[in-house]
Amino acid sequence: MSAKKKTEQSLTAPLSTLLRLPQGPVTMAELDPAAIPGYPGQGKKDAAQRTEALGAELSELQERLFAAGRNDPTSAPSVLVVLQGMDTSGKGGVVRHAMGLVDPQGVALASFKAPTAEERRHHYLWRIRKVLPEAGKIGVFDRSHYEDVLVVRVDQLVPMEVWEKRYDEINRFEQRLVDSGTTLIKCMLNVSFEEQKKRLLARLDDASKYWKYNPSDVDARSKWPAYQEAYAAVLERCNTDAAPWHVIPADRKWYRNWAVAELLRETLAGMNLGWPNADYDVAVERQRVVES
Amino acid sequence: MSAKKKTEQSLTAPLSTLLRLPQGPVTMAELDPAAIPGYPGQGKKDAAQRTEALGAELSELQERLFAAGRNDPTSAPSVLVVLQGMDTSGKGGVVRHAMGLVDPQGVALASFKAPTAEERRHHYLWRIRKVLPEAGKIGVFDRSHYEDVLVVRVDQLVPMEVWEKRYDEINRFEQRLVDSGTTLIKCMLNVSFEEQKKRLLARLDDASKYWKYNPSDVDARSKWPAYQEAYAAVLERCNTDAAPWHVIPADRKWYRNWAVAELLRETLAGMNLGWPNADYDVAVERQRVVES
Repeated sequence: MSAKKKTEQSLTAPLSTLLRLPQGPVTMAELDPAAIPGYPGQGKKDAAQRTEALGAELSELQERLFAAGRNDPTSAPSVLVVLQGMDTSGKGGVVRHAMGLVDPQGVALASFKAPTAEERRHHYLWRIRKVLPEAGKIGVFDRSHYEDVLVVRVDQLVPMEVWEKRYDEINRFEQRLVDSGTTLIKCMLNVSFEEQKKRLLARLDDASKYWKYNPSDVDARSKWPAYQEAYAAVLERCNTDAAPWHVIPADRKWYRNWAVAELLRETLAGMNLGWPNADYDVAVERQRVVES
Repeated sequence: MSAKKKTEQSLTAPLSTLLRLPQGPVTMAELDPAAIPGYPGQGKKDAAQRTEALGAELSELQERLFAAGRNDPTSAPSVLVVLQGMDTSGKGGVVRHAMGLVDPQGVALASFKAPTAEERRHHYLWRIRKVLPEAGKIGVFDRSHYEDVLVVRVDQLVPMEVWEKRYDEINRFEQRLVDSGTTLIKCMLNVSFEEQKKRLLARLDDASKYWKYNPSDVDARSKWPAYQEAYAAVLERCNTDAAPWHVIPADRKWYRNWAVAELLRETLAGMNLGWPNADYDVAVERQRVVES
Protein backbone atom coordinates (compact mmCIF):
# COMPACT_ATOMS: atom_id res chain seq x y z
CA MET A 1 0.00 0.00 0.00
CA SER A 2 1.53 3.32 -1.03
CA ALA A 3 1.85 6.30 1.28
CA LYS A 4 -0.54 8.15 -0.98
CA LYS A 5 -3.21 5.50 -0.62
CA LYS A 6 -2.82 5.54 3.14
CA THR A 7 -3.24 9.29 3.28
CA GLU A 8 -6.40 9.09 1.21
CA GLN A 9 -7.83 6.48 3.52
CA SER A 10 -7.24 8.62 6.55
CA LEU A 11 -9.03 11.47 4.88
CA THR A 12 -12.05 9.58 3.64
CA ALA A 13 -13.10 7.93 6.91
CA PRO A 14 -12.37 8.12 10.61
CA LEU A 15 -10.29 5.26 11.97
CA SER A 16 -13.21 4.07 14.07
CA THR A 17 -15.12 3.40 10.85
CA LEU A 18 -12.19 1.62 9.24
CA LEU A 19 -11.55 -0.63 12.23
CA ARG A 20 -15.12 -1.26 13.27
CA LEU A 21 -15.95 -4.86 12.56
CA PRO A 22 -18.99 -5.24 10.28
CA GLN A 23 -21.83 -7.11 11.96
CA GLY A 24 -22.41 -10.66 10.84
CA PRO A 25 -20.42 -13.88 10.63
CA VAL A 26 -16.71 -13.59 11.46
CA THR A 27 -13.89 -15.58 9.90
CA MET A 28 -10.71 -14.94 11.82
CA ALA A 29 -8.52 -15.91 8.87
CA GLU A 30 -9.92 -12.95 6.95
CA LEU A 31 -8.70 -10.43 9.52
CA ASP A 32 -5.15 -9.43 8.59
CA PRO A 33 -2.96 -8.95 11.70
CA ALA A 34 -0.30 -7.10 9.69
CA ALA A 35 -2.55 -4.52 8.02
CA ILE A 36 -2.28 -0.81 8.82
CA PRO A 37 -5.65 0.63 7.83
CA GLY A 38 -5.92 4.39 7.95
CA TYR A 39 -2.35 5.00 8.98
CA PRO A 40 -1.54 8.37 7.48
CA GLY A 41 2.24 8.33 7.82
CA GLN A 42 5.24 6.46 6.59
CA GLY A 43 5.14 3.48 8.88
CA LYS A 44 7.39 2.56 11.72
CA LYS A 45 9.71 5.50 11.33
CA ASP A 46 7.18 8.20 12.14
CA ALA A 47 4.63 6.25 14.20
CA ALA A 48 6.06 6.84 17.67
CA GLN A 49 6.21 10.55 16.90
CA ARG A 50 2.67 10.58 15.52
CA THR A 51 1.38 8.73 18.55
CA GLU A 52 3.18 11.12 20.91
CA ALA A 53 1.75 14.02 18.93
CA LEU A 54 -1.77 12.83 19.73
CA GLY A 55 -0.92 13.45 23.37
CA ALA A 56 -1.59 17.19 23.35
CA GLU A 57 -5.07 16.86 21.87
CA LEU A 58 -5.88 13.79 23.98
CA SER A 59 -4.77 15.71 27.01
CA GLU A 60 -7.17 18.59 26.44
CA LEU A 61 -10.06 16.31 25.48
CA GLN A 62 -9.50 14.18 28.56
CA GLU A 63 -9.46 17.27 30.74
CA ARG A 64 -12.83 18.32 29.37
CA LEU A 65 -14.23 14.90 30.20
CA PHE A 66 -12.70 15.07 33.66
CA ALA A 67 -14.11 18.56 34.21
CA ALA A 68 -17.56 17.35 33.20
CA GLY A 69 -17.29 14.58 35.78
CA ARG A 70 -16.26 16.98 38.50
CA ASN A 71 -19.04 19.34 37.57
CA ASP A 72 -21.83 16.78 37.43
CA PRO A 73 -20.90 13.35 38.78
CA THR A 74 -24.44 12.06 38.43
CA SER A 75 -24.79 12.48 34.69
CA ALA A 76 -21.42 13.24 33.12
CA PRO A 77 -20.23 10.69 30.57
CA SER A 78 -17.35 8.25 30.89
CA VAL A 79 -15.35 6.09 28.50
CA LEU A 80 -14.34 2.47 28.81
CA VAL A 81 -11.56 1.03 26.66
CA VAL A 82 -11.74 -2.76 26.64
CA LEU A 83 -8.54 -4.50 25.52
CA GLN A 84 -8.66 -8.15 24.57
CA GLY A 85 -6.17 -10.28 22.68
CA MET A 86 -3.97 -13.35 22.89
CA ASP A 87 -0.74 -13.31 24.93
CA THR A 88 1.85 -10.95 23.40
CA SER A 89 -0.83 -9.12 21.39
CA GLY A 90 0.23 -6.01 23.30
CA LYS A 91 -2.45 -5.10 25.81
CA GLY A 92 0.28 -3.88 28.16
CA GLY A 93 2.04 -2.03 25.37
CA VAL A 94 -1.17 -0.18 24.53
CA VAL A 95 -1.66 0.80 28.16
CA ARG A 96 1.90 2.08 28.35
CA HIS A 97 2.16 3.87 25.02
CA ALA A 98 -1.42 4.94 24.25
CA MET A 99 -3.11 5.33 27.64
CA GLY A 100 0.18 6.66 29.00
CA LEU A 101 -0.41 9.77 26.89
CA VAL A 102 -3.28 10.79 29.14
CA ASP A 103 -3.15 12.44 32.57
CA PRO A 104 -3.06 9.58 35.12
CA GLN A 105 -5.74 11.40 37.12
CA GLY A 106 -8.21 10.80 34.33
CA VAL A 107 -7.49 7.13 33.76
CA ALA A 108 -8.71 4.17 35.81
CA LEU A 109 -6.92 1.00 34.81
CA ALA A 110 -8.12 -2.46 35.79
CA SER A 111 -6.26 -5.64 34.93
CA PHE A 112 -8.20 -8.87 35.15
CA LYS A 113 -6.25 -11.99 35.89
CA ALA A 114 -7.54 -15.42 36.83
CA PRO A 115 -10.30 -14.71 39.36
CA THR A 116 -9.44 -14.88 43.05
CA ALA A 117 -11.20 -17.22 45.43
CA GLU A 118 -13.47 -14.34 46.48
CA GLU A 119 -14.25 -13.39 42.89
CA ARG A 120 -15.13 -16.97 42.06
CA ARG A 121 -17.80 -16.90 44.75
CA HIS A 122 -19.59 -14.12 42.84
CA HIS A 123 -21.22 -13.72 39.44
CA TYR A 124 -18.51 -13.17 36.81
CA LEU A 125 -19.62 -9.55 36.27
CA TRP A 126 -19.23 -8.72 39.97
CA ARG A 127 -15.55 -7.85 39.75
CA ILE A 128 -16.20 -5.96 36.52
CA ARG A 129 -18.93 -3.77 38.02
CA LYS A 130 -16.74 -2.91 40.99
CA VAL A 131 -14.23 -1.08 38.79
CA LEU A 132 -16.37 0.57 36.13
CA PRO A 133 -15.14 4.09 35.43
CA GLU A 134 -16.84 6.87 37.34
CA ALA A 135 -18.24 9.93 35.56
CA GLY A 136 -15.52 11.86 33.77
CA LYS A 137 -13.02 9.02 33.78
CA ILE A 138 -11.48 6.89 31.07
CA GLY A 139 -11.57 3.31 32.27
CA VAL A 140 -9.16 0.86 30.71
CA PHE A 141 -9.68 -2.89 31.03
CA ASP A 142 -6.65 -5.07 30.38
CA ARG A 143 -8.69 -8.22 29.72
CA SER A 144 -12.31 -8.08 30.81
CA HIS A 145 -15.59 -9.92 31.18
CA TYR A 146 -14.81 -11.43 27.78
CA GLU A 147 -12.39 -13.81 29.49
CA ASP A 148 -15.54 -15.49 30.78
CA VAL A 149 -16.37 -16.59 27.24
CA LEU A 150 -12.76 -17.03 26.09
CA VAL A 151 -10.47 -18.94 28.46
CA VAL A 152 -13.55 -20.17 30.27
CA ARG A 153 -14.98 -21.59 27.04
CA VAL A 154 -11.70 -22.97 25.70
CA ASP A 155 -10.77 -24.67 28.96
CA GLN A 156 -14.40 -25.60 29.74
CA LEU A 157 -14.11 -24.02 33.18
CA VAL A 158 -17.89 -24.00 33.34
CA PRO A 159 -20.33 -26.15 31.34
CA MET A 160 -21.37 -25.01 27.87
CA GLU A 161 -24.91 -24.19 28.98
CA VAL A 162 -23.43 -21.67 31.40
CA TRP A 163 -21.02 -19.83 29.09
CA GLU A 164 -23.44 -20.09 26.20
CA LYS A 165 -25.86 -17.72 27.95
CA ARG A 166 -23.17 -15.16 28.65
CA TYR A 167 -23.00 -13.59 25.20
CA ASP A 168 -26.52 -12.22 25.48
CA GLU A 169 -25.93 -11.31 29.10
CA ILE A 170 -22.81 -9.37 28.17
CA ASN A 171 -24.74 -7.55 25.44
CA ARG A 172 -27.42 -6.52 27.93
CA PHE A 173 -24.77 -5.50 30.45
CA GLU A 174 -22.97 -3.35 27.91
CA GLN A 175 -26.24 -1.85 26.68
CA ARG A 176 -27.03 -0.72 30.21
CA LEU A 177 -23.55 0.75 30.55
CA VAL A 178 -24.05 2.72 27.37
CA ASP A 179 -27.51 3.81 28.51
CA SER A 180 -26.00 5.15 31.70
CA GLY A 181 -23.49 7.32 29.87
CA THR A 182 -20.43 5.16 29.23
CA THR A 183 -18.99 4.99 25.73
CA LEU A 184 -17.30 1.66 25.13
CA ILE A 185 -14.28 1.31 22.87
CA LYS A 186 -13.82 -2.44 22.50
CA CYS A 187 -10.51 -3.37 20.91
CA MET A 188 -9.48 -6.86 19.92
CA LEU A 189 -5.72 -6.80 19.40
CA ASN A 190 -5.24 -9.24 16.57
CA VAL A 191 -1.79 -10.83 16.59
CA SER A 192 -0.80 -13.67 14.26
CA PHE A 193 0.33 -17.13 15.32
CA GLU A 194 3.74 -16.51 13.75
CA GLU A 195 4.24 -13.13 15.38
CA GLN A 196 3.28 -14.56 18.76
CA LYS A 197 6.04 -17.13 18.40
CA LYS A 198 8.59 -14.40 17.68
CA ARG A 199 7.49 -12.39 20.68
CA LEU A 200 7.56 -15.37 23.04
CA LEU A 201 11.07 -16.24 21.83
CA ALA A 202 12.14 -12.62 22.32
CA ARG A 203 11.10 -12.91 25.96
CA LEU A 204 13.25 -16.00 26.35
CA ASP A 205 16.25 -14.45 24.61
CA ASP A 206 16.53 -11.43 26.91
CA ALA A 207 17.03 -11.80 30.66
CA SER A 208 15.25 -8.47 31.21
CA LYS A 209 12.13 -10.05 29.74
CA TYR A 210 12.13 -13.43 31.50
CA TRP A 211 9.56 -12.14 34.00
CA LYS A 212 7.09 -11.50 31.18
CA TYR A 213 7.13 -15.12 30.15
CA ASN A 214 5.00 -17.78 31.73
CA PRO A 215 5.09 -21.45 30.73
CA SER A 216 1.30 -21.37 30.58
CA ASP A 217 1.64 -19.02 27.57
CA VAL A 218 2.66 -22.03 25.46
CA ASP A 219 -0.22 -24.05 26.84
CA ALA A 220 -2.64 -21.37 25.63
CA ARG A 221 -0.76 -21.17 22.33
CA SER A 222 -1.24 -24.89 21.83
CA LYS A 223 -4.98 -24.23 21.87
CA TRP A 224 -4.77 -21.49 19.24
CA PRO A 225 -7.56 -22.87 16.99
CA ALA A 226 -9.94 -23.15 19.94
CA TYR A 227 -9.12 -19.57 20.96
CA GLN A 228 -9.65 -18.34 17.42
CA GLU A 229 -13.06 -20.00 17.46
CA ALA A 230 -13.87 -18.45 20.83
CA TYR A 231 -12.75 -15.00 19.61
CA ALA A 232 -14.84 -15.38 16.47
CA ALA A 233 -17.88 -16.09 18.64
CA VAL A 234 -17.19 -13.01 20.77
CA LEU A 235 -16.69 -10.80 17.74
CA GLU A 236 -19.81 -12.12 16.08
CA ARG A 237 -22.21 -12.35 18.98
CA CYS A 238 -21.19 -9.28 20.98
CA ASN A 239 -20.76 -6.84 18.13
CA THR A 240 -23.75 -4.66 18.90
CA ASP A 241 -24.74 -1.20 17.72
CA ALA A 242 -24.35 0.04 21.28
CA ALA A 243 -20.93 -1.52 21.81
CA PRO A 244 -19.28 -2.59 18.57
CA TRP A 245 -15.94 -4.35 18.26
CA HIS A 246 -12.86 -2.85 16.66
CA VAL A 247 -10.26 -5.29 15.43
CA ILE A 248 -6.80 -3.75 15.70
CA PRO A 249 -4.14 -5.43 13.58
CA ALA A 250 -1.41 -6.01 16.16
CA ASP A 251 1.56 -7.55 14.37
CA ARG A 252 3.05 -4.08 14.05
CA LYS A 253 3.38 -2.59 17.51
CA TRP A 254 3.74 0.94 16.17
CA TYR A 255 0.45 0.70 14.30
CA ARG A 256 -1.38 -0.91 17.22
CA ASN A 257 -0.37 1.83 19.67
CA TRP A 258 -1.16 4.63 17.27
CA ALA A 259 -4.51 3.10 16.33
CA VAL A 260 -5.81 2.78 19.90
CA ALA A 261 -4.65 6.30 20.75
CA GLU A 262 -6.37 7.64 17.63
CA LEU A 263 -9.58 5.69 18.39
CA LEU A 264 -9.63 7.27 21.84
CA ARG A 265 -9.01 10.71 20.37
CA GLU A 266 -11.85 10.31 17.88
CA THR A 267 -14.21 9.08 20.56
CA LEU A 268 -13.46 11.97 22.91
CA ALA A 269 -13.62 14.51 20.10
CA GLY A 270 -16.98 13.10 19.05
CA MET A 271 -18.41 13.78 22.50
CA ASN A 272 -18.22 17.52 21.79
CA LEU A 273 -17.54 18.40 25.39
CA GLY A 274 -17.40 22.05 26.33
CA TRP A 275 -16.05 23.41 29.58
CA PRO A 276 -18.52 23.42 32.48
CA ASN A 277 -20.06 26.73 33.44
CA ALA A 278 -19.06 28.16 36.79
CA ASP A 279 -21.52 27.16 39.51
CA TYR A 280 -20.53 30.27 41.46
CA ASP A 281 -20.51 34.00 40.67
CA VAL A 282 -17.18 34.60 38.94
CA ALA A 283 -17.11 38.36 39.60
CA VAL A 284 -17.93 37.93 43.28
CA GLU A 285 -15.27 35.25 43.70
CA ARG A 286 -12.73 37.31 41.83
CA GLN A 287 -13.31 40.14 44.25
CA ARG A 288 -12.98 37.81 47.21
CA VAL A 289 -9.62 36.54 45.96
CA VAL A 290 -8.36 40.04 45.19
CA GLU A 291 -9.19 41.12 48.72
CA SER A 292 -7.71 38.03 50.31
CA MET B 1 22.16 31.80 41.77
CA SER B 2 24.38 31.23 38.75
CA ALA B 3 24.02 28.27 36.43
CA LYS B 4 27.49 27.20 37.52
CA LYS B 5 26.51 27.13 41.17
CA LYS B 6 23.42 25.13 40.36
CA THR B 7 25.44 22.56 38.45
CA GLU B 8 27.83 22.20 41.35
CA GLN B 9 24.95 21.63 43.72
CA SER B 10 23.55 18.90 41.55
CA LEU B 11 26.92 17.23 41.47
CA THR B 12 27.74 17.50 45.14
CA ALA B 13 24.55 16.00 46.52
CA PRO B 14 21.50 14.09 45.35
CA LEU B 15 18.32 16.11 45.22
CA SER B 16 16.82 14.01 47.99
CA THR B 17 19.55 15.28 50.30
CA LEU B 18 19.04 18.88 49.24
CA LEU B 19 15.27 18.80 49.70
CA ARG B 20 15.12 16.61 52.77
CA LEU B 21 13.98 18.73 55.67
CA PRO B 22 16.43 18.67 58.59
CA GLN B 23 14.90 17.25 61.74
CA GLY B 24 14.01 19.73 64.46
CA PRO B 25 11.89 22.84 64.84
CA VAL B 26 10.34 24.18 61.62
CA THR B 27 9.71 27.82 60.76
CA MET B 28 7.62 27.99 57.62
CA ALA B 29 8.83 31.51 56.81
CA GLU B 30 12.34 30.14 56.40
CA LEU B 31 11.32 27.77 53.62
CA ASP B 32 11.61 29.64 50.31
CA PRO B 33 8.77 28.67 47.91
CA ALA B 34 10.63 30.21 44.95
CA ALA B 35 13.98 28.46 45.40
CA ILE B 36 15.26 25.93 42.86
CA PRO B 37 17.78 23.85 44.80
CA GLY B 38 19.79 21.39 42.78
CA TYR B 39 18.28 22.34 39.45
CA PRO B 40 21.07 21.65 36.97
CA GLY B 41 19.72 23.53 33.96
CA GLN B 42 18.84 26.97 32.83
CA GLY B 43 15.43 27.31 34.41
CA LYS B 44 12.04 27.38 32.83
CA LYS B 45 13.30 27.13 29.29
CA ASP B 46 14.81 23.68 29.59
CA ALA B 47 12.86 22.25 32.50
CA ALA B 48 10.01 20.58 30.60
CA GLN B 49 12.58 18.93 28.37
CA ARG B 50 14.70 17.84 31.34
CA THR B 51 11.65 16.42 33.09
CA GLU B 52 10.57 14.55 29.95
CA ALA B 53 14.11 13.24 29.59
CA LEU B 54 13.82 11.58 32.99
CA GLY B 55 11.03 9.51 31.49
CA ALA B 56 13.25 6.93 29.81
CA GLU B 57 15.23 6.13 32.95
CA LEU B 58 12.14 6.27 35.16
CA SER B 59 10.43 3.91 32.77
CA GLU B 60 13.12 1.25 33.02
CA LEU B 61 13.47 1.62 36.79
CA GLN B 62 9.72 1.35 37.24
CA GLU B 63 9.65 -1.77 35.09
CA ARG B 64 12.28 -3.38 37.30
CA LEU B 65 10.16 -2.60 40.34
CA PHE B 66 7.07 -3.96 38.61
CA ALA B 67 8.92 -7.11 37.57
CA ALA B 68 10.03 -7.64 41.16
CA GLY B 69 6.42 -7.38 42.27
CA ARG B 70 5.28 -9.90 39.70
CA ASN B 71 8.08 -12.24 40.61
CA ASP B 72 7.59 -12.13 44.37
CA PRO B 73 4.41 -10.40 45.51
CA THR B 74 4.98 -11.33 49.13
CA SER B 75 8.27 -9.54 49.62
CA ALA B 76 8.99 -7.22 46.69
CA PRO B 77 9.28 -3.55 47.58
CA SER B 78 6.90 -0.75 46.71
CA VAL B 79 7.07 3.04 46.70
CA LEU B 80 4.58 5.56 48.02
CA VAL B 81 4.73 9.20 46.94
CA VAL B 82 2.74 11.37 49.36
CA LEU B 83 1.79 14.79 47.99
CA GLN B 84 0.62 17.46 50.38
CA GLY B 85 0.25 21.20 49.89
CA MET B 86 -2.19 24.08 49.95
CA ASP B 87 -4.70 24.58 47.12
CA THR B 88 -2.94 25.46 43.86
CA SER B 89 0.39 24.15 45.12
CA GLY B 90 0.25 21.74 42.20
CA LYS B 91 -0.49 18.25 43.45
CA GLY B 92 -2.47 17.59 40.29
CA GLY B 93 0.27 19.11 38.14
CA VAL B 94 2.83 16.78 39.68
CA VAL B 95 0.61 13.77 39.04
CA ARG B 96 0.16 14.83 35.43
CA HIS B 97 3.68 15.88 34.56
CA ALA B 98 5.88 13.78 36.86
CA MET B 99 3.88 10.62 37.55
CA GLY B 100 2.59 10.78 33.98
CA LEU B 101 6.11 9.86 32.85
CA VAL B 102 5.67 6.38 34.25
CA ASP B 103 3.81 3.42 32.73
CA PRO B 104 0.22 3.64 34.06
CA GLN B 105 0.35 -0.08 34.85
CA GLY B 106 2.97 0.61 37.51
CA VAL B 107 1.23 3.52 39.20
CA ALA B 108 -1.66 3.39 41.67
CA LEU B 109 -3.09 6.85 42.27
CA ALA B 110 -5.38 7.67 45.16
CA SER B 111 -6.94 11.08 45.69
CA PHE B 112 -8.31 11.82 49.14
CA LYS B 113 -11.15 14.28 49.36
CA ALA B 114 -13.36 15.07 52.31
CA PRO B 115 -14.20 11.66 53.77
CA THR B 116 -17.45 10.01 52.72
CA ALA B 117 -20.11 9.03 55.23
CA GLU B 118 -18.75 5.47 55.20
CA GLU B 119 -15.17 6.64 55.68
CA ARG B 120 -16.21 8.76 58.64
CA ARG B 121 -17.53 5.68 60.36
CA HIS B 122 -14.01 4.21 60.35
CA HIS B 123 -10.65 5.13 61.83
CA TYR B 124 -9.02 7.83 59.67
CA LEU B 125 -6.34 5.40 58.46
CA TRP B 126 -8.93 2.91 57.19
CA ARG B 127 -9.32 4.52 53.79
CA ILE B 128 -5.56 4.96 53.56
CA ARG B 129 -4.79 1.31 54.26
CA LYS B 130 -7.31 0.19 51.63
CA VAL B 131 -5.30 1.76 48.82
CA LEU B 132 -1.70 1.22 49.86
CA PRO B 133 0.44 0.20 46.87
CA GLU B 134 0.90 -3.50 46.34
CA ALA B 135 4.35 -5.01 45.84
CA GLY B 136 6.05 -3.63 42.75
CA LYS B 137 3.80 -0.60 42.46
CA ILE B 138 4.36 3.12 42.84
CA GLY B 139 1.51 4.49 44.90
CA VAL B 140 0.74 8.19 44.64
CA PHE B 141 -1.37 9.93 47.26
CA ASP B 142 -2.92 13.25 46.22
CA ARG B 143 -3.52 14.43 49.79
CA SER B 144 -3.27 11.73 52.44
CA HIS B 145 -3.62 10.84 56.10
CA TYR B 146 -1.96 14.18 56.82
CA GLU B 147 -5.28 15.88 56.10
CA ASP B 148 -6.34 14.42 59.44
CA VAL B 149 -3.89 16.73 61.20
CA LEU B 150 -4.24 19.62 58.73
CA VAL B 151 -7.80 20.59 57.79
CA VAL B 152 -9.03 18.56 60.75
CA ARG B 153 -6.81 20.56 63.10
CA VAL B 154 -7.43 23.96 61.51
CA ASP B 155 -11.20 23.53 61.40
CA GLN B 156 -11.28 21.64 64.71
CA LEU B 157 -13.25 18.82 63.12
CA VAL B 158 -12.29 16.67 66.09
CA PRO B 159 -11.19 17.83 69.56
CA MET B 160 -7.54 18.66 70.13
CA GLU B 161 -6.96 15.62 72.32
CA VAL B 162 -7.93 13.46 69.35
CA TRP B 163 -5.80 15.04 66.62
CA GLU B 164 -2.94 15.62 69.04
CA LYS B 165 -2.39 11.86 69.33
CA ARG B 166 -2.32 11.38 65.57
CA TYR B 167 1.22 12.60 64.93
CA ASP B 168 2.72 9.70 66.86
CA GLU B 169 0.19 7.34 65.40
CA ILE B 170 1.09 8.41 61.88
CA ASN B 171 4.77 7.92 62.68
CA ARG B 172 4.09 4.39 63.86
CA PHE B 173 1.91 3.70 60.83
CA GLU B 174 4.58 4.91 58.46
CA GLN B 175 7.29 3.00 60.29
CA ARG B 176 5.31 -0.20 59.82
CA LEU B 177 4.86 0.58 56.14
CA VAL B 178 8.59 1.03 55.76
CA ASP B 179 9.25 -2.17 57.72
CA SER B 180 7.02 -4.04 55.33
CA GLY B 181 8.95 -2.90 52.27
CA THR B 182 7.41 0.41 51.19
CA THR B 183 9.69 3.38 50.57
CA LEU B 184 7.89 6.64 51.31
CA ILE B 185 8.65 9.82 49.40
CA LYS B 186 6.79 12.51 51.32
CA CYS B 187 6.61 15.80 49.43
CA MET B 188 5.22 19.02 50.84
CA LEU B 189 4.61 21.32 47.87
CA ASN B 190 5.39 24.73 49.29
CA VAL B 191 3.54 27.51 47.50
CA SER B 192 3.60 31.12 48.69
CA PHE B 193 0.57 33.15 49.73
CA GLU B 194 1.19 35.56 46.85
CA GLU B 195 1.58 32.84 44.24
CA GLN B 196 -1.61 31.16 45.43
CA LYS B 197 -3.49 34.38 44.82
CA LYS B 198 -2.17 34.58 41.26
CA ARG B 199 -3.15 30.99 40.57
CA LEU B 200 -6.65 31.39 41.99
CA LEU B 201 -7.15 34.51 39.88
CA ALA B 202 -5.89 32.66 36.82
CA ARG B 203 -8.64 30.08 37.37
CA LEU B 204 -11.22 32.85 37.46
CA ASP B 205 -9.85 34.58 34.38
CA ASP B 206 -10.13 31.58 32.07
CA ALA B 207 -13.44 29.81 31.43
CA SER B 208 -11.58 26.55 30.79
CA LYS B 209 -10.39 26.69 34.40
CA TYR B 210 -13.60 27.63 36.19
CA TRP B 211 -14.16 24.00 37.15
CA LYS B 212 -10.88 23.97 39.05
CA TYR B 213 -12.03 26.77 41.33
CA ASN B 214 -14.13 26.25 44.40
CA PRO B 215 -15.35 29.08 46.64
CA SER B 216 -14.11 27.08 49.62
CA ASP B 217 -10.56 27.66 48.32
CA VAL B 218 -10.78 31.26 49.56
CA ASP B 219 -12.16 30.10 52.89
CA ALA B 220 -9.07 27.92 53.34
CA ARG B 221 -6.88 30.80 52.15
CA SER B 222 -8.35 33.04 54.81
CA LYS B 223 -6.97 30.61 57.37
CA TRP B 224 -3.45 30.68 55.92
CA PRO B 225 -1.63 31.33 59.21
CA ALA B 226 -3.47 28.45 60.91
CA TYR B 227 -2.57 26.17 58.00
CA GLN B 228 1.05 27.24 58.13
CA GLU B 229 1.08 26.38 61.80
CA ALA B 230 -0.52 23.01 61.10
CA TYR B 231 1.99 22.30 58.32
CA ALA B 232 4.87 23.27 60.60
CA ALA B 233 3.62 20.75 63.16
CA VAL B 234 3.40 18.02 60.51
CA LEU B 235 6.86 18.78 59.18
CA GLU B 236 8.34 18.90 62.65
CA ARG B 237 6.60 15.99 64.33
CA CYS B 238 6.37 13.54 61.45
CA ASN B 239 9.84 14.01 59.98
CA THR B 240 11.25 10.64 60.97
CA ASP B 241 14.32 8.74 59.84
CA ALA B 242 12.06 6.10 58.36
CA ALA B 243 9.84 8.55 56.50
CA PRO B 244 11.37 12.01 56.21
CA TRP B 245 9.71 15.05 54.65
CA HIS B 246 10.93 16.76 51.52
CA VAL B 247 9.86 20.36 51.07
CA ILE B 248 9.49 21.13 47.36
CA PRO B 249 9.53 24.82 46.50
CA ALA B 250 6.39 25.10 44.37
CA ASP B 251 6.14 28.67 43.15
CA ARG B 252 7.84 27.62 39.94
CA LYS B 253 5.81 24.86 38.38
CA TRP B 254 8.67 23.73 36.15
CA TYR B 255 10.96 23.23 39.14
CA ARG B 256 8.29 21.45 41.18
CA ASN B 257 7.53 18.91 38.45
CA TRP B 258 11.19 18.26 37.71
CA ALA B 259 12.04 17.92 41.39
CA VAL B 260 9.41 15.29 42.17
CA ALA B 261 10.30 13.30 39.05
CA GLU B 262 13.98 13.45 40.02
CA LEU B 263 13.23 12.41 43.62
CA LEU B 264 11.37 9.40 42.29
CA ARG B 265 14.21 8.57 39.92
CA GLU B 266 16.78 8.75 42.72
CA THR B 267 14.65 6.61 44.99
CA LEU B 268 14.12 3.90 42.38
CA ALA B 269 17.77 3.97 41.33
CA GLY B 270 18.79 3.63 44.97
CA MET B 271 16.83 0.40 45.28
CA ASN B 272 19.37 -1.30 42.97
CA LEU B 273 16.79 -3.60 41.46
CA GLY B 274 17.97 -6.26 39.06
CA TRP B 275 15.75 -8.30 36.78
CA PRO B 276 14.16 -11.36 38.39
CA ASN B 277 15.62 -14.73 37.50
CA ALA B 278 13.45 -17.04 35.44
CA ASP B 279 11.46 -19.39 37.64
CA TYR B 280 11.32 -21.89 34.77
CA ASP B 281 13.95 -23.61 32.62
CA VAL B 282 14.70 -21.14 29.83
CA ALA B 283 16.18 -23.73 27.46
CA VAL B 284 13.26 -26.09 27.92
CA GLU B 285 10.73 -23.33 27.35
CA ARG B 286 12.60 -22.06 24.33
CA GLN B 287 12.37 -25.51 22.80
CA ARG B 288 8.66 -25.71 23.58
CA VAL B 289 8.02 -22.40 21.84
CA VAL B 290 10.17 -23.33 18.84
CA GLU B 291 8.19 -26.52 18.42
CA SER B 292 4.83 -24.84 18.89
